[in-house]
Amino acid sequence: MAITVEVISHHHKVKTTRGRLLSEVLIEAGIPLSAYCRGRGLCGQCCVEILEGILPDYQDGEHRLLAQRGFGPNHRLACLYKLQGSVRISIPESSVLEKMPILAWGAAIPPAFDPAVKKYFLELPQPELARPESWCDILKQGLKLPDPQASLDAIRALPSIWAQSEGRLTAVIHRDQDILALEPGDTTSRLFGLAVDLGTTTLIVDLVDLTSGRVLDSETALNSQAAYGADVVSRISLVFAEPGQAGRVREAVIKDLNRMTSSLLRRNGLSPEHVYEAVIAGNTAMNHLLTGAAIDSLAVAPFSPLFSALPAFPPREIGLGIHDRGRVYIAPNIKSFVGGDISAGLMASGFLDKPGPLLYLDLGTNGEIALKKDDRILVTSTAAGPAFEGMNISQGMLAVPGAVCRVEDEDGFRVFTIGDRPARGICGSGLIDLAAVCLSRGFITPAGAISRPEKRIPVAPGLSLEQKDVRELQLASAAVKSGMRMMLDAAGLKASGLKQLFIAGAFGNYLNIARAMSLGLLPSLDPAQIVFLGNASLSGARLLLLSLETRRRLESLVGGIHHFSLASQPAFQDIFIDSLEFKPWS
Amino acid sequence: MAITVEVISHHHKVKTTRGRLLSEVLIEAGIPLSAYCRGRGLCGQCCVEILEGILPDYQDGEHRLLAQRGFGPNHRLACLYKLQGSVRISIPESSVLEKMPILAWGAAIPPAFDPAVKKYFLELPQPELARPESWCDILKQGLKLPDPQASLDAIRALPSIWAQSEGRLTAVIHRDQDILALEPGDTTSRLFGLAVDLGTTTLIVDLVDLTSGRVLDSETALNSQAAYGADVVSRISLVFAEPGQAGRVREAVIKDLNRMTSSLLRRNGLSPEHVYEAVIAGNTAMNHLLTGAAIDSLAVAPFSPLFSALPAFPPREIGLGIHDRGRVYIAPNIKSFVGGDISAGLMASGFLDKPGPLLYLDLGTNGEIALKKDDRILVTSTAAGPAFEGMNISQGMLAVPGAVCRVEDEDGFRVFTIGDRPARGICGSGLIDLAAVCLSRGFITPAGAISRPEKRIPVAPGLSLEQKDVRELQLASAAVKSGMRMMLDAAGLKASGLKQLFIAGAFGNYLNIARAMSLGLLPSLDPAQIVFLGNASLSGARLLLLSLETRRRLESLVGGIHHFSLASQPAFQDIFIDSLEFKPWS
Repeated sequence: MAITVEVISHHHKVKTTRGRLLSEVLIEAGIPLSAYCRGRGLCGQCCVEILEGILPDYQDGEHRLLAQRGFGPNHRLACLYKLQGSVRISIPESSVLEKMPILAWGAAIPPAFDPAVKKYFLELPQPELARPESWCDILKQGLKLPDPQASLDAIRALPSIWAQSEGRLTAVIHRDQDILALEPGDTTSRLFGLAVDLGTTTLIVDLVDLTSGRVLDSETALNSQAAYGADVVSRISLVFAEPGQAGRVREAVIKDLNRMTSSLLRRNGLSPEHVYEAVIAGNTAMNHLLTGAAIDSLAVAPFSPLFSALPAFPPREIGLGIHDRGRVYIAPNIKSFVGGDISAGLMASGFLDKPGPLLYLDLGTNGEIALKKDDRILVTSTAAGPAFEGMNISQGMLAVPGAVCRVEDEDGFRVFTIGDRPARGICGSGLIDLAAVCLSRGFITPAGAISRPEKRIPVAPGLSLEQKDVRELQLASAAVKSGMRMMLDAAGLKASGLKQLFIAGAFGNYLNIARAMSLGLLPSLDPAQIVFLGNASLSGARLLLLSLETRRRLESLVGGIHHFSLASQPAFQDIFIDSLEFKPWS
Repeated sequence: MAITVEVISHHHKVKTTRGRLLSEVLIEAGIPLSAYCRGRGLCGQCCVEILEGILPDYQDGEHRLLAQRGFGPNHRLACLYKLQGSVRISIPESSVLEKMPILAWGAAIPPAFDPAVKKYFLELPQPELARPESWCDILKQGLKLPDPQASLDAIRALPSIWAQSEGRLTAVIHRDQDILALEPGDTTSRLFGLAVDLGTTTLIVDLVDLTSGRVLDSETALNSQAAYGADVVSRISLVFAEPGQAGRVREAVIKDLNRMTSSLLRRNGLSPEHVYEAVIAGNTAMNHLLTGAAIDSLAVAPFSPLFSALPAFPPREIGLGIHDRGRVYIAPNIKSFVGGDISAGLMASGFLDKPGPLLYLDLGTNGEIALKKDDRILVTSTAAGPAFEGMNISQGMLAVPGAVCRVEDEDGFRVFTIGDRPARGICGSGLIDLAAVCLSRGFITPAGAISRPEKRIPVAPGLSLEQKDVRELQLASAAVKSGMRMMLDAAGLKASGLKQLFIAGAFGNYLNIARAMSLGLLPSLDPAQIVFLGNASLSGARLLLLSLETRRRLESLVGGIHHFSLASQPAFQDIFIDSLEFKPWS
């Protein structure tokens, strides 16, 4: 028989049937009820006020959870409330899921807040003579999970933790299954994770509160592996030629990450024991070097990675300084050089969920491109080189304070720097602006030659553009442009047919789209169609840290993404050479 | 449209429909077709000859698998053969599953041969430029498993193994999911496991061929933990009082197991790398001591174990000398002192599958009893002490050559020894025979007193029965008898209502049922209702090693088995004292 649930707080009325759980009915009706423990009556977050209708007796532990949050006798947990008749309810604000505070989530359906690592506080009964369950079974029953797995480690630790806390303990659970650790007392409010952007040039580590999803603090550093080569190709070549160096290259970045993590923890009054998971988004080569997997197969055609998706592994496998029983998860590599940084970014941007045709461009040290047409997704990687990051440019630098990021043509060059500091060098977006202005002024030809005899263009006091710099930009730009052109051709698309162009990478922050279009680096689109994502890899790492559902979805999708091999295209050389010319797309 | 499959070799004709897999149709029809790889076309064991009907083209790898086994052009793998019309086939003997060569399988449905660890030989293609899958994904695709998980270890090892073998390699898979290890070339014929009876007094290790299920060799030894106490209670007391001893007690038995394993491997020309799994059946206390889990909770009421089921773990966790990437599986403890030795035995005997009422008795150092009525199973453990193993008896000994195992009343005692050797002592069954003869002759009273003034009965030259020995037997017997009586009472059953009584334990091998009944140790039943299982724990360990399905089933069943607490029965003291009298059940 039909009954109704009237939600006063949300001006909503739902028809449903007896016997259903109130939480399920509310979530189906589109009310973003918090469901941290997935309906097991353990977290107390889905509390509602029953204004009219049956008020059942409290169930096990329900009263404690409600009282802890200061709720009165008319409140119940929606996930324990079986509907026996029509009700009128009100949902307190604290029971409604906050929008996940991560950047750049672009998909139609926002992911649920459902971190892979969760903590549950349990008050466990002692075994009794009449029912001598094992201690571990009592723990498992308390968790109400379908198939919890306790490691020997956790079992060995159980008695002393139980004794310390008289059965009032916190279980740390991974992927709703593995009991990673046990802590005495209620420690549910202290649970943290790291989201890591493992870049070839720069590293970013975010400290994330896994109880709220908030990013608490962030640390940036240069990747010390740069000492072994500025780009992935040179690092791979080094390790391929001297396998003995692999360990040193690996340790360089692990040391960086551990130093950054230590700083974050110190600043926030935390210790490694509070951090149970790190999610790392890096390109294929960086992921291989980090995990100690051989890079040989990346050094020679067909440049196949050793692995794409990896199950989460204990941090000691790579020497990362978080909780020893925690987990490290690496965003899955897609194919060849298109790695976890891109899979994470594609996920975070909504690219994987939105209808196409869509183009995705990530300009870091490598240039990765993804094209979506109907359900088919193609990806490729171009050896753009680090010019867009300001590297290999005479006076190039990263997009940090003091870098020229914008150049205007005002009867001579007018330069703008990041943070309005005195100009110290030029970053990627500044270089593009400068080249575009020079091109329009005729200082450089469309073929990339500086027309002045001295082959140098003074820009500002102590700052000039060299012929070599123009060549670097020209090669990088041609690599990206020819990649996009060949992929569009292969899909039977024209650039004008694209719905959106996503641009990932810090590089995009200061980019002048019109200038990039005038050089041909970007196809000529309506600027409204262009979406700047910022650091989509880092957003993706955060998303994968906070949503297990997203992680599972990404793992199920990456296998179906196709690699588009630029080098095996018959027209490759022709299109690349044609793309060397600075000119807008026709 | 209906089609028919006529199986000439098995005089069988099945009606079915187009589009179904031949293997499924045959297995459903009750033909025990070998299905080692579970229908993934990898093992080549389900080959059939197509006598009449469509002969499709070979599928990937099919021809190689058939050729390897010497089959001609008319043979196909049943698991790859999709029926498109009626066929007449013949199934070679080698494609039919052998009955699993393990002892004491009593259930109606024999379990499938499906070891938890399997090996598959794969011929993997190189990645190609147009399809640069990761090497690991190529491996996973080759395995055709739904969700294979490669550890970082396996991934790190992959390149060198691939290089050594040019992609012709063997994958070692655990529970159809985890890639434990990779080996170059085809090593599928060499895969071994250990079935271990972890007894309080004796240890048995069987070396099992995991490709055929055959027990190749066996090793028996005394448990060196005896130095820390003859029974579990004294070992628990010791470790409880001196926790520092736990490590030494643990190491004692690990050393035993490793020494036994080494002997087995040496004798059979194998090395630890050939052994990928050990299944251990031991009682609750032995399992705790083995795994380094605290025994404190077993030392005090309500004697709850720390764990019941444990996920399989790497052997290094306990220091067992098999393949480092292998697994150790411990048969799940049930409740309190009713451990994995009993759960394994209940499974192997068919007790869990057969209709009740059934009684199960395992007389080792402890006496465990299980009673089944309808779907309800009760278990308990009695502190019988080691008298039935010949321990704590003046001239007692294990049931080994030279032990008196049978005593006949022929105008004086006539003793029989195991192996017809000169009598060196008396084992459990000999003690029972002797006591029964003495009782009938009036040498001892039903109350257990030796009627002769010297309180000693000479049995054979140098062998006599002391008053103390009769008391030991009396206490042990009363413990077991009162346990059975209270459980039957609680279930509202009489002994005469039992369908079967299973007797597990080496002890049963030489037991004279009539004598045991005359003392009241066993209820008075028709001897045909009594099933001697021999070492059911060891049979169970072998079964759990060879059938993953059985392992899953046991795990799903143990939780529902109830513990029957003897000590909390109000009539406990009365029934125990009444049971001290030597007399048949009334």
